[in-house]
Amino acid sequence: MTQSGDIPVEDFKRAATRAIDWIASYLTHPEEYPVLAQVRPGEMKTALPASAPKSAEPLDGVLDDFEEIVVPGITHWNHPCFFAYFGITGSAPGILGELLSAALNVNGMLWQTSPAATELEEVALDWLRQMLGLPEHFDGVIMDTASVSTLCAIAAARHALSDLEIRERGMSGRSDLPLLRLYTSEQAHSSVEKAALVLGLGKAGVRKVPTDDAFRLDAGALESAITEDREAGHRPFCVTATVGTTSTTSIDPIPAIAEICRREGLWLHVDAAYAGSAAVIPEYRHVLDGCEAATSVVVNPHKWLFTPIDCSALYTTRPDVLTGAFSLVPEYLRTGVDGEIRNYMDWGVSLGRRFRALKLWMVLRCFGTEGIALRLREHIRLAQQFAGRIDEHPEFERLAPTPLSVVCFRARPAHIDSDEEALNAFNETLLQRLNAGGQVYLSHTTLDGRYTLRLAIGNVRTEERHVARAWELICAEGKRLASE
Amino acid sequence: MTQSGDIPVEDFKRAATRAIDWIASYLTHPEEYPVLAQVRPGEMKTALPASAPKSAEPLDGVLDDFEEIVVPGITHWNHPCFFAYFGITGSAPGILGELLSAALNVNGMLWQTSPAATELEEVALDWLRQMLGLPEHFDGVIMDTASVSTLCAIAAARHALSDLEIRERGMSGRSDLPLLRLYTSEQAHSSVEKAALVLGLGKAGVRKVPTDDAFRLDAGALESAITEDREAGHRPFCVTATVGTTSTTSIDPIPAIAEICRREGLWLHVDAAYAGSAAVIPEYRHVLDGCEAATSVVVNPHKWLFTPIDCSALYTTRPDVLTGAFSLVPEYLRTGVDGEIRNYMDWGVSLGRRFRALKLWMVLRCFGTEGIALRLREHIRLAQQFAGRIDEHPEFERLAPTPLSVVCFRARPAHIDSDEEALNAFNETLLQRLNAGGQVYLSHTTLDGRYTLRLAIGNVRTEERHVARAWELICAEGKRLASE
Repeated sequence: MTQSGDIPVEDFKRAATRAIDWIASYLTHPEEYPVLAQVRPGEMKTALPASAPKSAEPLDGVLDDFEEIVVPGITHWNHPCFFAYFGITGSAPGILGELLSAALNVNGMLWQTSPAATELEEVALDWLRQMLGLPEHFDGVIMDTASVSTLCAIAAARHALSDLEIRERGMSGRSDLPLLRLYTSEQAHSSVEKAALVLGLGKAGVRKVPTDDAFRLDAGALESAITEDREAGHRPFCVTATVGTTSTTSIDPIPAIAEICRREGLWLHVDAAYAGSAAVIPEYRHVLDGCEAATSVVVNPHKWLFTPIDCSALYTTRPDVLTGAFSLVPEYLRTGVDGEIRNYMDWGVSLGRRFRALKLWMVLRCFGTEGIALRLREHIRLAQQFAGRIDEHPEFERLAPTPLSVVCFRARPAHIDSDEEALNAFNETLLQRLNAGGQVYLSHTTLDGRYTLRLAIGNVRTEERHVARAWELICAEGKRLASE
Repeated sequence: MTQSGDIPVEDFKRAATRAIDWIASYLTHPEEYPVLAQVRPGEMKTALPASAPKSAEPLDGVLDDFEEIVVPGITHWNHPCFFAYFGITGSAPGILGELLSAALNVNGMLWQTSPAATELEEVALDWLRQMLGLPEHFDGVIMDTASVSTLCAIAAARHALSDLEIRERGMSGRSDLPLLRLYTSEQAHSSVEKAALVLGLGKAGVRKVPTDDAFRLDAGALESAITEDREAGHRPFCVTATVGTTSTTSIDPIPAIAEICRREGLWLHVDAAYAGSAAVIPEYRHVLDGCEAATSVVVNPHKWLFTPIDCSALYTTRPDVLTGAFSLVPEYLRTGVDGEIRNYMDWGVSLGRRFRALKLWMVLRCFGTEGIALRLREHIRLAQQFAGRIDEHPEFERLAPTPLSVVCFRARPAHIDSDEEALNAFNETLLQRLNAGGQVYLSHTTLDGRYTLRLAIGNVRTEERHVARAWELICAEGKRLASE
């Protein structure tokens, strides 16, 4: 170890080669690991020293500890039987993109601080926009997560209320400010409400509109809520609709909602974080129907587009309002080209910006639009097949429609067939046992008070045999549990 | 190219090996590139196809384009003559950490979704806390940037005003809410004001306190401002002080500010994003004096701690209030161990969380606390040496004290010695020419109306000869410009 400078480059090369070998082997056989980490709380913490070492340690020793201490504490999102939450894939080109991006280590806050970071972000987002069928009047920016994209979109919606002068005057110490209302469905992601909390809208600022029997926002109820709020002197300003809700992947009726927003002069933000990617498949392009009339749309390439976490694409037809809400340029961040280019620091909260566009661009190129469509189509086919098995089995039932690649279901064993409380307890135990086995990992939700199992397909390594294996395990564990 | 699954693993290995070779060569000779990218706006965009390819392209061709199209558009933050903004380093262990983290591709939102991600974050942050000399009652979380860390800290400060019930009731539609005031210095980073805009405090909610002649917040002025605001019926709630301001790295008098905050019952957030790392050097531990009494402190390992962007460590003594502000747990995110562990999704805005702790842990181990101190000490020595050269030269002057590794100065050629306007124009042109040359990259600020050049040292590859070379170039370009 030298006394100055970075770690010697030969050491880096040797360790990197070892890391690449490990990754190649890992990605070939992620099934060799339990999906859900089989460790107890605190187990890993206690395996590590209480303080950082005084002297430098060799990279090789750190890689040993990575394999021996860190990896056993990993829940394997790369495992083809990872069916929890939304399945994701950090594909090979995406991993290489992250590697190169880490090596370049640029901060893309300004065009000047790496023109390639800014311009590749523009290019990759324009490619993706075309793939999704969004019109040209949408312009984009990459954020870390949909939580932040949605926060920024709602902040822009608030800024669009120019008569209220919130940027200058704020929201406190004023008696002239009506209650600002954001509308979203009962099935919307928690990030919508979290954004409202951050923005100072509070829980009172979020009106949760009921959904229909397919868990889609009820447009009629939205319209009534807006009318009621206006009559009460409140100020409606934004609707956040969802294409692909987290619990059931239901798709809100965007065309009807967009029409209401147009008529009422409201900002329409569409959370298509997961399901937006389906629009890449020609016959599923309709999932984004109506979004051409939205003011902003978020789609996460790190969800169902093979890009390593994190990468969230926020599109908006009002970049002027978005930058109006966020731009603050102190002297030390001015450059000589500011009039000719865009500085992405003006588009959101974070000044520091990783070069995330590189991995997205590499993923789009290495899979191609047809390659992406092919894989997503297969995920949907596998989910439909699994839904069919549920429907055919007398002791299981589906609890929501399956428009895309997530199936919501529960076991309904004959002996407790109509005891809702017992069914909830049964399914909760079933899930715990399934996951504890380490062969599959599913997550859950509740729908109309029913404990619901979710099987979500989204990993590029998931094949028919993996879903079949999950079904076998579910049936076997269900039978065992019913016989106890 | 297969029709399903990921890119074949052999292709990944081959491309990864090529990428590692490229990176090793790049990191050995970053000086072979111009520091500041020598491209014109739009140049790179036009070099790329207008749409994504339909068919998959081989990784090798994408790597070709990376080298031929992307790299020329990179401003090289790895170049030892990168002296702009704050110098940063994505060191070898940090790059490997990012590579492994991208390969694992876990979302550390919940403990269960990768116990190792949560527990290694706790461990690495506790190691760093000890290295910084922060007391044990500080608990930490990793965010992407200091902008977001500061946003979250101020959101927590607002939530601490429990009588106002802002989480439930929000800030609009209320006549009972006094003007909430956040205090920070005129030299604070723009992210403080941006956070206030996002949180709905508005520009009116931020009171910028004057600084003394060394650009440090004037504690007396802070006290008067608070008194004045209370008398006006406003509600002071938070002070954001800075250890290492962006323009000059001045250090606010934290002990005095902390005492005021204690007396007034205000949340004290300390932005030590850059300079906090200096506390790792035993004889510079004093930079964080007083922070033991702060409520939250942010230090960015991606700034001056050799960790690739992004990695920001937010410490707080009130994790209960921070999670109180942010926690929202829908049914689909509940797990069976929630009472026993921490779920970091409750600590901030983003639900999705990359495994950033891995790179930080690898950096701390591979450099060791002494190795880190050694390198930071050298950066400070080089900056002091450069400051000495400025001070000795009759046609240059320093415009601010140099407590750490950033030097603020300007040329002051004899022929325009007391014409402030001409001096500003001269220095602006000097900077443009220096940067256009591609051999060094400095940035600027203004101090008391004076256009100020900043030479910031923070890259692990920067040696005495690089700073000497910068000085040569500055003198030569200054002489040339003066003679025109």
